Amino acid sequence: MRTVARPGGTMTPPDVHPAEPVLLRTVGVIGTGLIGTSIALALRERGVTVHLSDRDPEAARCAATMGAGTVEPCGTTVDLGIIAVPPTAVGAVLAEAQAQGLAQAYTDVASTKARPYRDAVAAGCGTATFVGGHPMAGSEASGPTAARPGLFVGRPWVLTPGEKAGQYVRAAVAELVELCSAVPVIMDPEHHDRAVALISHAPHVLSTLMAARLEHLDGAALGLAGRGVRDVTRIAGGDPMLWADILSSNASVIADILDFLVADMASASTALRSLGSATDPEYDKAGTQLVDLLARGRAGYDRLNPLSEGADVAR
Amino acid sequence: MRTVARPGGTMTPPDVHPAEPVLLRTVGVIGTGLIGTSIALALRERGVTVHLSDRDPEAARCAATMGAGTVEPCGTTVDLGIIAVPPTAVGAVLAEAQAQGLAQAYTDVASTKARPYRDAVAAGCGTATFVGGHPMAGSEASGPTAARPGLFVGRPWVLTPGEKAGQYVRAAVAELVELCSAVPVIMDPEHHDRAVALISHAPHVLSTLMAARLEHLDGAALGLAGRGVRDVTRIAGGDPMLWADILSSNASVIADILDFLVADMASASTALRSLGSATDPEYDKAGTQLVDLLARGRAGYDRLNPLSEGADVAR
Repeated sequence: MRTVARPGGTMTPPDVHPAEPVLLRTVGVIGTGLIGTSIALALRERGVTVHLSDRDPEAARCAATMGAGTVEPCGTTVDLGIIAVPPTAVGAVLAEAQAQGLAQAYTDVASTKARPYRDAVAAGCGTATFVGGHPMAGSEASGPTAARPGLFVGRPWVLTPGEKAGQYVRAAVAELVELCSAVPVIMDPEHHDRAVALISHAPHVLSTLMAARLEHLDGAALGLAGRGVRDVTRIAGGDPMLWADILSSNASVIADILDFLVADMASASTALRSLGSATDPEYDKAGTQLVDLLARGRAGYDRLNPLSEGADVAR
Repeated sequence: MRTVARPGGTMTPPDVHPAEPVLLRTVGVIGTGLIGTSIALALRERGVTVHLSDRDPEAARCAATMGAGTVEPCGTTVDLGIIAVPPTAVGAVLAEAQAQGLAQAYTDVASTKARPYRDAVAAGCGTATFVGGHPMAGSEASGPTAARPGLFVGRPWVLTPGEKAGQYVRAAVAELVELCSAVPVIMDPEHHDRAVALISHAPHVLSTLMAARLEHLDGAALGLAGRGVRDVTRIAGGDPMLWADILSSNASVIADILDFLVADMASASTALRSLGSATDPEYDKAGTQLVDLLARGRAGYDRLNPLSEGADVAR
């Protein structure tokens, strides 16, 4: 994992020397959902002028009311256009913004990176003034009212500069990340997409599948539900339309992981069928399979939580 | 959901009138893992004398060191024997305790209720002095060192009295639940087992399957992991041997749910394969299927969190 240094200097911890805008005096935020509005709020705290727009004018006005900037159009070209729309919309929105000459340079914040870049190239966008980005922060809540300026503090913010990306846009996105107190991480788009398929998109599908089984839960069972099932299903509370777009934009990579999970789950079910009958000829073998699966799960938990030995209390 | 009243009185909130032992002056806790030791600690706080035992004498001594009771054998018959061992061991442990005349009455705390009762009957146990129980609290951490006396405060504690259960054991387990400041819930064993299969055991399997995929996660991907995947995989940090026992003891009920989940996940994968290619003839239908699945997940989330509109922040 490499970090992006500011041109002519090294990164300083944001709590010691709060970053001040150098390149970014005025930005445009296109799309005032949770992420776009949170970025706008963070930039406003640093004194950046922010112009807000959204295909739903009410969402932009709501963000403005929260202090995220102004809905008045900008008379001049802004320093950076931040495209905060769902992944499959990035290419078309970037093409339109470039055609209008909205900004000196552009970035996006979509949860996948290969598809938006391909779409942008296919739409004829200039790639010398564009660097893709993905701030690794969010919520199952959505919309401008869920936004907060501290959303990105200390969180990774992936940047995926293409070969043709120029010096200005590289410096501008580095400053954006710094102003939001996030940690820049350079990756290539395909590596990013494989990583988020595993640590974000597949978990979202599993969480959703489990939650979908609870739709008609009876009252007695509901009364027994504890923190375990709530944690497993928390991200299933996300916006279905947004998540359909995210999953669609990384579809094949996620499907590969789901196929492994389908096979593992079918094996678990078969083992449990054998364990349901003490006279089943596969009973002992099934017991070993079940322990092996649970041990692999525990190993994955340990990989994700290397310092923990089974964390805080509540099931 | 019905609650159990104390004989001759109604339940009072434990924070207003802390319960004092009436029937339970001396108890035996057999099995000093997380649950057994937590119960012992809660009872010690109410002044109950607790005799601890475990097939691993070191675990019992550890619990005693924490103030959970004494490892000295009891000279007389105790008021209640609390069997805190894995589900498939309950029947044999109860039979042995009854043969030794350890206690006036018995309960267990296993995560499934039908199998332990069947095992007890098959082992020739007397069922007039036994009521099964399941305190709905726990942790991915295990062993006596993870125990705490407040583990059960305000949590449901399922009781599954059989038809032959006598007045004394019914009153004794009601007092046990009250002394632990938990909320008694009477259910029949099969209803309990179907409910926990859905709200505890199936989520545990899904969490485990996801965590198992992360065992060999590369460092860059690990660095991007946020609260979402950590929440989905948290319960996979549980003890593999204990969970193999729990899942085995409710195997067929869980397998039924997993088969639905396998079908749903295979459908999700097929839909994503279509969405991976804009020229796929099923593209539009697949998009609709994906949105429908995510909407069902959101509905399940809302069922579990009726007052929330997408809760606190962090993905």
